[in-house]
Amino acid sequence: MRPSGRNLDEMRAVSVETGFTKHAEGSALIKMGDTHVLCTATIEDRVPPFIKGSGLGWVTAEYGMLPRATNTRMRREASAGKQGGRTVEIQRLIGRSLRAGVDRVALGERQITVDCDVLQADGGTRCASITGGWIALRLAVNKLMKAGDVISDPLTDPVAAVSCGIYAGQPVIDLDYPEDSEAGVDGNFIMTGSRRLIEVQMSAEGSTYSRDQMNALMDLAEKGVTELVAIQKGATA
Amino acid sequence: MRPSGRNLDEMRAVSVETGFTKHAEGSALIKMGDTHVLCTATIEDRVPPFIKGSGLGWVTAEYGMLPRATNTRMRREASAGKQGGRTVEIQRLIGRSLRAGVDRVALGERQITVDCDVLQADGGTRCASITGGWIALRLAVNKLMKAGDVISDPLTDPVAAVSCGIYAGQPVIDLDYPEDSEAGVDGNFIMTGSRRLIEVQMSAEGSTYSRDQMNALMDLAEKGVTELVAIQKGATA
Amino acid sequence: MRPSGRNLDEMRAVSVETGFTKHAEGSALIKMGDTHVLCTATIEDRVPPFIKGSGLGWVTAEYGMLPRATNTRMRREASAGKQGGRTVEIQRLIGRSLRAGVDRVALGERQITVDCDVLQADGGTRCASITGGWIALRLAVNKLMKAGDVISDPLTDPVAAVSCGIYAGQPVIDLDYPEDSEAGVDGNFIMTGSRRLIEVQMSAEGSTYSRDQMNALMDLAEKGVTELVAIQKGATA
Amino acid sequence: MRPSGRNLDEMRAVSVETGFTKHAEGSALIKMGDTHVLCTATIEDRVPPFIKGSGLGWVTAEYGMLPRATNTRMRREASAGKQGGRTVEIQRLIGRSLRAGVDRVALGERQITVDCDVLQADGGTRCASITGGWIALRLAVNKLMKAGDVISDPLTDPVAAVSCGIYAGQPVIDLDYPEDSEAGVDGNFIMTGSRRLIEVQMSAEGSTYSRDQMNALMDLAEKGVTELVAIQKGATA
Amino acid sequence: MRPSGRNLDEMRAVSVETGFTKHAEGSALIKMGDTHVLCTATIEDRVPPFIKGSGLGWVTAEYGMLPRATNTRMRREASAGKQGGRTVEIQRLIGRSLRAGVDRVALGERQITVDCDVLQADGGTRCASITGGWIALRLAVNKLMKAGDVISDPLTDPVAAVSCGIYAGQPVIDLDYPEDSEAGVDGNFIMTGSRRLIEVQMSAEGSTYSRDQMNALMDLAEKGVTELVAIQKGATA
Amino acid sequence: MRPSGRNLDEMRAVSVETGFTKHAEGSALIKMGDTHVLCTATIEDRVPPFIKGSGLGWVTAEYGMLPRATNTRMRREASAGKQGGRTVEIQRLIGRSLRAGVDRVALGERQITVDCDVLQADGGTRCASITGGWIALRLAVNKLMKAGDVISDPLTDPVAAVSCGIYAGQPVIDLDYPEDSEAGVDGNFIMTGSRRLIEVQMSAEGSTYSRDQMNALMDLAEKGVTELVAIQKGATA
Repeated sequence: MRPSGRNLDEMRAVSVETGFTKHAEGSALIKMGDTHVLCTATIEDRVPPFIKGSGLGWVTAEYGMLPRATNTRMRREASAGKQGGRTVEIQRLIGRSLRAGVDRVALGERQITVDCDVLQADGGTRCASITGGWIALRLAVNKLMKAGDVISDPLTDPVAAVSCGIYAGQPVIDLDYPEDSEAGVDGNFIMTGSRRLIEVQMSAEGSTYSRDQMNALMDLAEKGVTELVAIQKGATA
Repeated sequence: MRPSGRNLDEMRAVSVETGFTKHAEGSALIKMGDTHVLCTATIEDRVPPFIKGSGLGWVTAEYGMLPRATNTRMRREASAGKQGGRTVEIQRLIGRSLRAGVDRVALGERQITVDCDVLQADGGTRCASITGGWIALRLAVNKLMKAGDVISDPLTDPVAAVSCGIYAGQPVIDLDYPEDSEAGVDGNFIMTGSRRLIEVQMSAEGSTYSRDQMNALMDLAEKGVTELVAIQKGATA
Repeated sequence: MRPSGRNLDEMRAVSVETGFTKHAEGSALIKMGDTHVLCTATIEDRVPPFIKGSGLGWVTAEYGMLPRATNTRMRREASAGKQGGRTVEIQRLIGRSLRAGVDRVALGERQITVDCDVLQADGGTRCASITGGWIALRLAVNKLMKAGDVISDPLTDPVAAVSCGIYAGQPVIDLDYPEDSEAGVDGNFIMTGSRRLIEVQMSAEGSTYSRDQMNALMDLAEKGVTELVAIQKGATA
Repeated sequence: MRPSGRNLDEMRAVSVETGFTKHAEGSALIKMGDTHVLCTATIEDRVPPFIKGSGLGWVTAEYGMLPRATNTRMRREASAGKQGGRTVEIQRLIGRSLRAGVDRVALGERQITVDCDVLQADGGTRCASITGGWIALRLAVNKLMKAGDVISDPLTDPVAAVSCGIYAGQPVIDLDYPEDSEAGVDGNFIMTGSRRLIEVQMSAEGSTYSRDQMNALMDLAEKGVTELVAIQKGATA
Repeated sequence: MRPSGRNLDEMRAVSVETGFTKHAEGSALIKMGDTHVLCTATIEDRVPPFIKGSGLGWVTAEYGMLPRATNTRMRREASAGKQGGRTVEIQRLIGRSLRAGVDRVALGERQITVDCDVLQADGGTRCASITGGWIALRLAVNKLMKAGDVISDPLTDPVAAVSCGIYAGQPVIDLDYPEDSEAGVDGNFIMTGSRRLIEVQMSAEGSTYSRDQMNALMDLAEKGVTELVAIQKGATA
Repeated sequence: MRPSGRNLDEMRAVSVETGFTKHAEGSALIKMGDTHVLCTATIEDRVPPFIKGSGLGWVTAEYGMLPRATNTRMRREASAGKQGGRTVEIQRLIGRSLRAGVDRVALGERQITVDCDVLQADGGTRCASITGGWIALRLAVNKLMKAGDVISDPLTDPVAAVSCGIYAGQPVIDLDYPEDSEAGVDGNFIMTGSRRLIEVQMSAEGSTYSRDQMNALMDLAEKGVTELVAIQKGATA
């Protein structure tokens, strides 16, 4: 029934190539099917003004898409002169999600910026960004620990994300672009490795949904995140 | 236990003054406690390029806050030269939510813009904007119907929104600013008059939550939206 | 002869609601007929760089109009990405005018920002902003005095403003929008309570005027400002 | 008494070099003492959208200052990314003033843009821009007439401007920078060759003035404009 | 003598992976040592306004760098709100260079946009962009030809580029970042497969050079471009 | 053969008027035929952040064109809200070129900004800007030396520039606009008074060139720069 032939609860193939770029303290190219996102984590010895002197660290994220990551070319945001509303929304979500797995006291007064740049898009780029962004963050923090710059591990619980939605009347996991563009209801579910919820964003466009449908998607999401966390662990072991 | 002395499931006093400004096709000043939002609906005989010629209508929203709506003065976005990320996120949410209650075929090829401007803020401005924005939209559509410009009612089911969160370990409804700034988990629940879900956004900042907690907030939200829809009906009768 | 039926030297009904918003140190909603402006005054313990360390205070103003304050919806300046030329002109005028009634030594090294936001427009918004802005400023300074933060009153002489113009060949006071859009000559007259002049801006668009006409408008303006200053005193007593 | 040794009612030496640049339909370098402004008039066969198809013409103006036209270097507005408030105010004034001397029916549906660029500043740049801008406009219109593109002269009455102010307690004409920076009250007086008023802008900064003082400045301005109009006629004969 | 141990006339290892992304009509990831650039070519059935209706085609380019492509993180241009001067310079150069190998009549009235995004930088990104950009262009044009959308091949002569400079007093080819940051003189040499010159940009920063030195670099460049053109042919055969 | 009737190796008449504006530490109006550029040099006791505390000086440049410097009016960059790509490219070139003739240690920790504003354009504005900019810089440095603010002359070798190109198959020097708009190949050659090269930018648009042609242009350029340096010396003696 799904365009890809997948089962309702079957995610796309996921692969991770760590160390994809050499300069960043942590980097990974994550592929969820045909959605490919390059994630890098940068450590800097400065924090935003609002926490200067607090002893707390900060984790933030930025998101971008190459102009021809998509089926038709989109205008380059740098040339348009600003980040679009969708971009801003997504990068705020990524940063907020990753921070939920971080002990900012243990991190100490430094900032880690996770850049998520979509090289190729086929649906689910924000979830791939969070899942891959966590890997880059893990690798960067590993360097801090190896160097003795932090004493206890500031990463408390892995963070991963998956999209689920109602496609052709059925709850499905990890929508690709053909499904995403048809689904009347879809959501992003961000959770920790211990299945605690960080953020649920479930929206209908020109449609509505019931609590039962919501619960069905939540069930799917828990299954998916469990698989993703295992992949994260394998990639950063 | 709540700073305001309210019960856990008790919303703030809500009042609505329709016709607050004279030029708009629909207008309402909604007060949810000390959060005051002026909502206006503007009808225009044009639609965005991507639906031109489709026969479909469009409903969109813009959101703003006066510089001293808040406890300390914020920089005016017009003078800063751009809308902040939070503003963009909120106005996209308002537009998406209102459209869920609109039959765009029945509306016909015209656009209604709902402007939500916060005159005074005390938490929950996005929910007040959606609830009040629907009232302005209802009033504007009433004019269209009275004038015979639309044949059947393009508004299918009222849309309202309420925030709920975990404050001091307890699920509470309609957080005011003192609660909102302390809550580790809070969510916005947008529903229709028939209790169908439109959008759930439930996020933790530096924290996580369980499915049980999520369900408790959902229960509160259903109660709150039911009350708000009754108020909307009273105001536009 | 006037569309509103008013006499040539008759202003619109003026009302003032002080304390319209709760956060600002001073606030007032001023209504001059159907022109409604929300004015707030914010006190901050910082001054612009060019007077830092001088011991002098500063009073400045910002002006905005809600998108549907007018008969047809105007584009939101925050979304357009900049304040239009008209906005910039008006807010510079408001700030300059208010400063003429302020003893900046007595104010001490602090800044008061007066925000004037037009909720509904029907001509004369800049004059209503100055007159209402003075009220907000007066209320904010009263707080400073009550708290003992300033020793002698930094407000030396009240400031008010009225527009006058040539409509249908006759000098008239306080033009509403239907008059304003027809008048070939109109001016803004900003004066103190003791009838000293602060600023006169009298311009013709596609027309010219004589010194006699200018003097007739000056006479009207003196009468109007006297009435407005009395209203200001009543509102802030 | 004046820093320059001039009499109270004595303007600075004025010179005009027409045809200073070769591409523009009209051009003039006007020097009022050490204030030097290059004015060019460009004719285009298009009008702004709001008068398209009306048969009416349009005259508009833009104003700029080279970064080192002033005593200390100012930031280049193109590099700052926007025109400052002062620039916007001035160019709107120039355009409005010039239009007062134009019969827009006789001009026909075309636009003339007058660019006023200050090469060297020593006070009074907006008045020099209006006076010199009229000369550029006159020369451009002469070309239209010679070519038979307009039938009757669209320029009805010459437009010129002079600044007057209260310096050291005395009314003086044509303030240079040392006077301008000290004067508590100064104004710009734009008039036609037949001494009709177009615009009066008379402002006090941290000060006030009486009607008698205003009248004294008006008297000076009438004298000055009469001299300037004679110079304009000489330059364009 | 070179930090990398290469001979003076030895380029870094070059590899090309075509089809790196699936949506673009042509795509290639080019690696010149540790400089990795993703190049995509997008075909659109529209041309810039200045050639509309001329029957001629257009080739243009855009350039970007991921924030952590470099040793320290650079601010994202989309978030800074504009493309920097260096970016603008480079993308104009890429477009101009590629057009030199294109028969715009044969291409027909369509536009090809070549996006060059640096995933990892180690010197010579603009030369890698041109060389890789040509490959993406070649692949996209091959599609046009296969589909019969163009009759004769619009690509007349391959275009490639290499940097050469004076490092430690010696002429060297294909500078990597350690060399580039030390070299007082460096240049970019863009040529065709038949060794015709397209663009030479040879600049000294805080230094100068002789014609003899210039000729030595030209000799190196001819050798390097010959090798690169062979690699281009291999990749697109 | 040339539209102007000049010989292939004949530059346009060059004139220089120093002290054209009074405020700048150095100023010159340079005319190369009908190309007129006003160059000013401003000395400031501050340097960019990246060299603060290094003891080194900095020379930078900005470039602008008046809207009607050209045959048809161009949009004012300040009003467009940004400097175009061409402007940015040119001003970076001017700054880089001038710095090649400056001993930044001898200059000491101060910045000189050279503004080049084109009053009238007829081809070759960037070369005129460099040649005239050097004169303004020389005059400003002379002031520093006369005042004893620098001990040894920080200007080591004069810098001048000329354009050469292939017009109608022939190498020609100092292209005017009619030649420039027809030439398939043209270059800018920046050299010192001792004929050392600073920058060569030689580009073809839709064309290519041989090394022999490149050498022919280099020969012409050496001749031209020699003449320009003599004119610079005469103007600043």
